[in-house]
Amino acid sequence: MPRNDVPNKVYLEAQELPTSWYNLIPNLPNPIDPPLHPVTFEPLRIEDLMSIFPKSLIAQEMSRDTYIPIPEGVQEMYRMFRPSPLTRAYCLEKYLGTPARIYYKYEGNNPSGSHKLNSAIPQAYYNKEAGIRRLTTETGAGQWGTALAVACAFYGMECVVYMVRCSYEQKPYRRAIMQTYDATVFSSPSNNTEVGRKILEQMPETSGSLGIAISEAVEDAASREDTNYALGSVLNHVVIHQSIIGQEAMAQMAKIGETPDIIIGCCGGGSNFAGLIAPFMGEQLAGRLNARFIGVEPAACPTLTRGVYAYDYGDVAGMTPLMKQYTLGANFIPSAIHAGGLRYHGMSQVISRLYHDKLIEATAVNQTDVFKAAKIFAVQEGLLPAPESSHAICQAINEALRCKETGEEKVILFCLSGHGNFDLTSYDNYNHGRIHDAPLSDEDLALGLSRLPKIPGIQG
Amino acid sequence: MPRNDVPNKVYLEAQELPTSWYNLIPNLPNPIDPPLHPVTFEPLRIEDLMSIFPKSLIAQEMSRDTYIPIPEGVQEMYRMFRPSPLTRAYCLEKYLGTPARIYYKYEGNNPSGSHKLNSAIPQAYYNKEAGIRRLTTETGAGQWGTALAVACAFYGMECVVYMVRCSYEQKPYRRAIMQTYDATVFSSPSNNTEVGRKILEQMPETSGSLGIAISEAVEDAASREDTNYALGSVLNHVVIHQSIIGQEAMAQMAKIGETPDIIIGCCGGGSNFAGLIAPFMGEQLAGRLNARFIGVEPAACPTLTRGVYAYDYGDVAGMTPLMKQYTLGANFIPSAIHAGGLRYHGMSQVISRLYHDKLIEATAVNQTDVFKAAKIFAVQEGLLPAPESSHAICQAINEALRCKETGEEKVILFCLSGHGNFDLTSYDNYNHGRIHDAPLSDEDLALGLSRLPKIPGIQG
Repeated sequence: MPRNDVPNKVYLEAQELPTSWYNLIPNLPNPIDPPLHPVTFEPLRIEDLMSIFPKSLIAQEMSRDTYIPIPEGVQEMYRMFRPSPLTRAYCLEKYLGTPARIYYKYEGNNPSGSHKLNSAIPQAYYNKEAGIRRLTTETGAGQWGTALAVACAFYGMECVVYMVRCSYEQKPYRRAIMQTYDATVFSSPSNNTEVGRKILEQMPETSGSLGIAISEAVEDAASREDTNYALGSVLNHVVIHQSIIGQEAMAQMAKIGETPDIIIGCCGGGSNFAGLIAPFMGEQLAGRLNARFIGVEPAACPTLTRGVYAYDYGDVAGMTPLMKQYTLGANFIPSAIHAGGLRYHGMSQVISRLYHDKLIEATAVNQTDVFKAAKIFAVQEGLLPAPESSHAICQAINEALRCKETGEEKVILFCLSGHGNFDLTSYDNYNHGRIHDAPLSDEDLALGLSRLPKIPGIQG
Repeated sequence: MPRNDVPNKVYLEAQELPTSWYNLIPNLPNPIDPPLHPVTFEPLRIEDLMSIFPKSLIAQEMSRDTYIPIPEGVQEMYRMFRPSPLTRAYCLEKYLGTPARIYYKYEGNNPSGSHKLNSAIPQAYYNKEAGIRRLTTETGAGQWGTALAVACAFYGMECVVYMVRCSYEQKPYRRAIMQTYDATVFSSPSNNTEVGRKILEQMPETSGSLGIAISEAVEDAASREDTNYALGSVLNHVVIHQSIIGQEAMAQMAKIGETPDIIIGCCGGGSNFAGLIAPFMGEQLAGRLNARFIGVEPAACPTLTRGVYAYDYGDVAGMTPLMKQYTLGANFIPSAIHAGGLRYHGMSQVISRLYHDKLIEATAVNQTDVFKAAKIFAVQEGLLPAPESSHAICQAINEALRCKETGEEKVILFCLSGHGNFDLTSYDNYNHGRIHDAPLSDEDLALGLSRLPKIPGIQG
């Protein structure tokens, strides 16, 4: 039954806002394998994480509660930019000529320009509660560093960002916005840490890497009593915080009497996709929903579609805990031709588990198709999307065109995780024909996988 | 009576959205003086404008109707980003410790990043209706050029933007976003027009100016049958389109049972301020409201507070009609130290008339105070404001602090006309102590005013 009585944008009243996050992990049919200590290979203990995270976040990381209350101090800041609108893409539907009804949840209306702020806020809040006055982190493109800077400024905390050197130099606006929120931004490798000084001595011309920046941020946090470290994706507590996206979306869909048939999100570390689908997947596992869930990744970094399900490190140096996940190998770096984000070698544990158990689908798309979809969306829906988020748009358009062929009036929901206002160099390259496809080669895939860690008795 | 039961953000249901613009002009106690032909000094006729504007917009420019229906084809695109949220600034109030209740209407949630799209859409729509397939315009900072590019892309029209050369070179991202919406962007002066070629010959090293860019855009439009010209501020029809801001704000305030005591907006050409206040002023003039209306301008370009009320041209070359307005003289250029927009020498006729009749107030603020207010707002309200819009924030904070002194629980409403994502060079300068005040000097004021046009029998 077609329904065109839905307003363009659906919001929620104050009393309808979610007051808890949704944790999918205790509801999975098969449990996540335990994270392992990077050196002893023993199951990870709470104490192993206490030099860089507060107890409250470690408890969330290991939580088996389905609902985790959102503290009022977090809700106060969420209310500045939440609920994010659920938008019916009437003009895009009309342009495509599809009978499908397309909805998107837009997470870009905040100074970080993306969903990242959803986790930066509680991470800053819980650390402040624990008496921590200073947070460190790394940032590549800058979305996560900006998000943490915004959250720290609100709670009156110091924020120190190790920004990959090439980004620091090429993205002065991203640096400037973090500084506007009073963050201290170091070009990484920096002289501020031992690991940074060592690398600068050996490779003074290095353009830096996320791996180096993580090492610097962790060293800084571990070496000071008043300082902790914050990570913007991948970990369970980050995924839990991002469930605010799905919690709101479910309430908004219910409000207009819609049920999604297809739920789509882009996948880098997996946090926005996991956050969107979490409560819907809960319904599905309880037999109350029958939807398809599709994670979309770049063909240049196809973690789910071409990686393996194995224990791997989160960083290059092998200092992080080992987690069971889909991975291309911790040393993997996507082709330099790849323009957008979504460059992480691994994937959050919960998305990996769902994919391994065939409860979600995944697809990899080429970046010329992604930018083509982004431009269609920009014109038809009046929003310039981030290249990352445009992976989800690309797949939503594919599904809507399939509905056009079959005549099916499916309800498609996707997460538009951020805006593209800081990605205009990439758009400029696309406009001038300088964006080319760079699917992962078999050789590079084999090389990445050849370096997976060997764990006696577990992984050979 | 304090009331803290208001949600952070107030929206409108589909059926509550305004379906007409509000035209304040027929309700003014004293009429606007007639615009004059630039050469004959006779009252301007419809025919004088027909080579660059469609009849429908000329009719709006001269309309004496209070309500002008918004065509469904315009409403369709408005619905993508409207209603804009009316936000209660709870965190800012708490930070200031004021008993005032502060509300702001945020116009930045669209790809132009500002209120400019509110007029770009109907201008593109009416031109398309009139059989025009190509629009030209000028842009300085780029907000207006982006807005027109977005609107033209949606309606399938060609958009040609003459972008002041120094901006074209210093703001490649603004150029890129216009090109992403398929606009053709020329660095002005260009080889594309006679006036451009002439200036390039005489001054090959010129950095360009808005005056030159206007001349190029008008020449291009006047010389082609299929092409018209579009202007982003100042004119009556632009002000009418911007009344969507005030129409929505009035419905949103009514919905939560609030009545504004003080209404604030920044003033460049006056379109966002006029748009916000129009329906409220209608209520005030009918004796149903008792509010203060405050226009805020930069001390570097104090058109209302230090200019004179006289007939003046809109451009440097004296090719536009003469309009009665507050002006610093058409040759006026603000100090190079001035960082933000709001650089126009004149002011919309309706704002000028209201100010002359003492129905609104005006104040000029220094830019270091503006950036200080911007940073407070950015941290407390989680939105990076445009420097232009921050003039309104600055005054709203001043008024809220006055309420703190007196204990008055006033209701303050201001327009946050746009975001600052494309203004990070200015923020970076502020962060590094490179922003200084540049109030207009008496000498520069006298020089600007000495060149006002002489009109026999009207202005000596």
